[in-house]
Amino acid sequence: MRAYIITIGDEILIGQTIDTNAAWLGAQFNKRGVQVTKILSIKDEEAAIHMALDEAFVFADVILMTGGLGPTLDDITKQSLCTYFNVGMRLSESSLNSVEKFVKSRGYFLNENNRQQAMVPENATIIPNHMGTAPIMQFEKNGKYLFSMPGVPFEMKDAMEKSVFPFIESKFALKPVKHHTVMTFGMPEAFLAEQLESWANELPEFIHLAYLPSPKGIKIRLSVYDTNIPEWEDRLEVNIEKLRKLIPELIFSETDQNLETILFQSLKKHQLHLATAESCTGGLISQLITSNPGSSEVFKGSVVAYSNEIKSKILGVSENVLESEGAVSEEVVRSMAENIRFLFHVDCSIAVSGIAGPGGGSDNKPVGTTWIAVSVNGKTESRKFQFGSRRDINTERAAYSGMYMLFDLIKRTYEQ
Amino acid sequence: MRAYIITIGDEILIGQTIDTNAAWLGAQFNKRGVQVTKILSIKDEEAAIHMALDEAFVFADVILMTGGLGPTLDDITKQSLCTYFNVGMRLSESSLNSVEKFVKSRGYFLNENNRQQAMVPENATIIPNHMGTAPIMQFEKNGKYLFSMPGVPFEMKDAMEKSVFPFIESKFALKPVKHHTVMTFGMPEAFLAEQLESWANELPEFIHLAYLPSPKGIKIRLSVYDTNIPEWEDRLEVNIEKLRKLIPELIFSETDQNLETILFQSLKKHQLHLATAESCTGGLISQLITSNPGSSEVFKGSVVAYSNEIKSKILGVSENVLESEGAVSEEVVRSMAENIRFLFHVDCSIAVSGIAGPGGGSDNKPVGTTWIAVSVNGKTESRKFQFGSRRDINTERAAYSGMYMLFDLIKRTYEQ
Repeated sequence: MRAYIITIGDEILIGQTIDTNAAWLGAQFNKRGVQVTKILSIKDEEAAIHMALDEAFVFADVILMTGGLGPTLDDITKQSLCTYFNVGMRLSESSLNSVEKFVKSRGYFLNENNRQQAMVPENATIIPNHMGTAPIMQFEKNGKYLFSMPGVPFEMKDAMEKSVFPFIESKFALKPVKHHTVMTFGMPEAFLAEQLESWANELPEFIHLAYLPSPKGIKIRLSVYDTNIPEWEDRLEVNIEKLRKLIPELIFSETDQNLETILFQSLKKHQLHLATAESCTGGLISQLITSNPGSSEVFKGSVVAYSNEIKSKILGVSENVLESEGAVSEEVVRSMAENIRFLFHVDCSIAVSGIAGPGGGSDNKPVGTTWIAVSVNGKTESRKFQFGSRRDINTERAAYSGMYMLFDLIKRTYEQ
Repeated sequence: MRAYIITIGDEILIGQTIDTNAAWLGAQFNKRGVQVTKILSIKDEEAAIHMALDEAFVFADVILMTGGLGPTLDDITKQSLCTYFNVGMRLSESSLNSVEKFVKSRGYFLNENNRQQAMVPENATIIPNHMGTAPIMQFEKNGKYLFSMPGVPFEMKDAMEKSVFPFIESKFALKPVKHHTVMTFGMPEAFLAEQLESWANELPEFIHLAYLPSPKGIKIRLSVYDTNIPEWEDRLEVNIEKLRKLIPELIFSETDQNLETILFQSLKKHQLHLATAESCTGGLISQLITSNPGSSEVFKGSVVAYSNEIKSKILGVSENVLESEGAVSEEVVRSMAENIRFLFHVDCSIAVSGIAGPGGGSDNKPVGTTWIAVSVNGKTESRKFQFGSRRDINTERAAYSGMYMLFDLIKRTYEQ
């Protein structure tokens, strides 16, 4: 089974919107053993839509199209589908009813725009949209299927999960694919690859290896696309086990979960409670930890101390130390990490103070200089990092480095 | 001038990486008056790369390709370019030198992977990579240009700004395009469109209108692609002025800047200082405000109170009120907003308490129930919101709603 994704919208081509839909769809297909062949992002333009459909109906069995279904004039997907299939429009009563219900639940009344949204190409089969007002449509051509969905991510995702994937799974026998992910933190890609070189060279050909670097760490992905190979599972496991022994200190997980989720699970497992004291990260660590549902079980809160006054007044860092060492110093982050534990009555803490940039650097402490301390019960560890020149990347690196330091200290304290 | 973007990498097709490069490139082209025609995301596969290049060399004058240049085995872009152009590889001395310098500055020594990275197709012109180790390459075919760049966003961006765009601008006469953006917050798209219907119908045909909704608000974009129309500037301005008068209470900006930047600028302009007291947003407001360079001028910090204990002990919310009204209540957010102002010595505050979900809801207070209060000097305003069922969207909506409430209160207090 081959799948194409077509995302429609000038806003994607002019970069006003980042196409997260395609990534989500790609991941969902992949889970089900289908690798998406191609993603096309095209204009809100009839000719562009027709050209993309022509290509997709040749190279794919299933085509997922998103965008261009809104209630406003710039949305032309439905009209373009009518001309592509050479059909007219009809009113979908089921769409109109569900739009009416939806609109009323938000305290508004049906208007002409909503009514226009319930018009669909004659040959479309309607799929319910539980999350919004645009109809979701299915088309068939020579045994191939096209789904046209709204660009609003949660509307599209809901329809995919409830209707489109179950339909696809009923029509096509999907071939299982095995991906195994090993998440690492703390070493750049080229050096990780060097350290793993002989291991990689000895991998059997049917195991595909990829390195995926980001400020959140480097994912090592091992994939098996042909599960007819004899004993593939055992042979994969043997090679994963070798990898574990080569870089034990760099691996934090063997799932696709991010460090914020792995750290949350580790805190929960050991019944530990966390608070953070953040300066340059501005609350990012707190925000990442609380992105986990149920995080209130382990996370009590945070003080974002964005001025020296707050560092001393709320977090109790000595004014003399702030004066003599500067806010970005080992003494200050250690004091932040220890004091927030006391103040919030918790076992664990992360404290960060750095120069995120672009301003604020000096010869001694250039932009990117960052001190991080983590504390688990009585034990506090601190480390200096020299990140780069970009504010957003420095902040993200600092947050992930802090979370990794704490994860690692908990592991060494409770699991060895 | 027509541009194509080709992003290469299985990680994009299987959704492990979101393609932010294409969005950035699209926005940069758009600024320079070029609308990208199409974005193709394809596999790390020779045949897929060749097919994409065949199409792009027909329909585009400039092709930007990212990805597949890493030091590891899964990266095959360079080999595929060799077979496409029917050339061999050569060692680029300039690349090797800059790789060596780069690697040494990070405290490592040159290894075989680094040396492999300095091998390039014979017909490539090398563009310096100041931010990493992969060479950036330029190719020419029939007066059309192809640039092959790393997928690492900051390496690609640096090369585009310093080398590729200046080159493109020297080769092609770019046609100016005018976009005007009006940012609104607080009304769903269908109802905003209804309210603006007659205004939209009366727009001259050369002004293109688009609505771009997100949890951050709805962007209204007016575009003029043909600047040969007589008096287009005056006629655009007249129509923008009409729009301003129709929905003054919904407009927060006429730039592409986000609410977090607009609020930061408003605080700076009025010499106000902000602190936040956050529960369900988990520090997101603090993190958004501090994403602005220089935010320490106006932002003192935040208390993330993720437990009732912290709400009472640190923020001084009455235990009786927490008990009788619950943490998600008007009394509690008002008290959080007022106390954080006092505690952090600031003029302005935002406080949020809500049920982000998926757990924690009840009949009286279902998931999505959120109270927000904002305070400017003596004046505190509070409002209840009923968001939906998704934790990430609820958190984002709460953060943006809180920032909008404060922005609006500052405007009413100091500008009217």
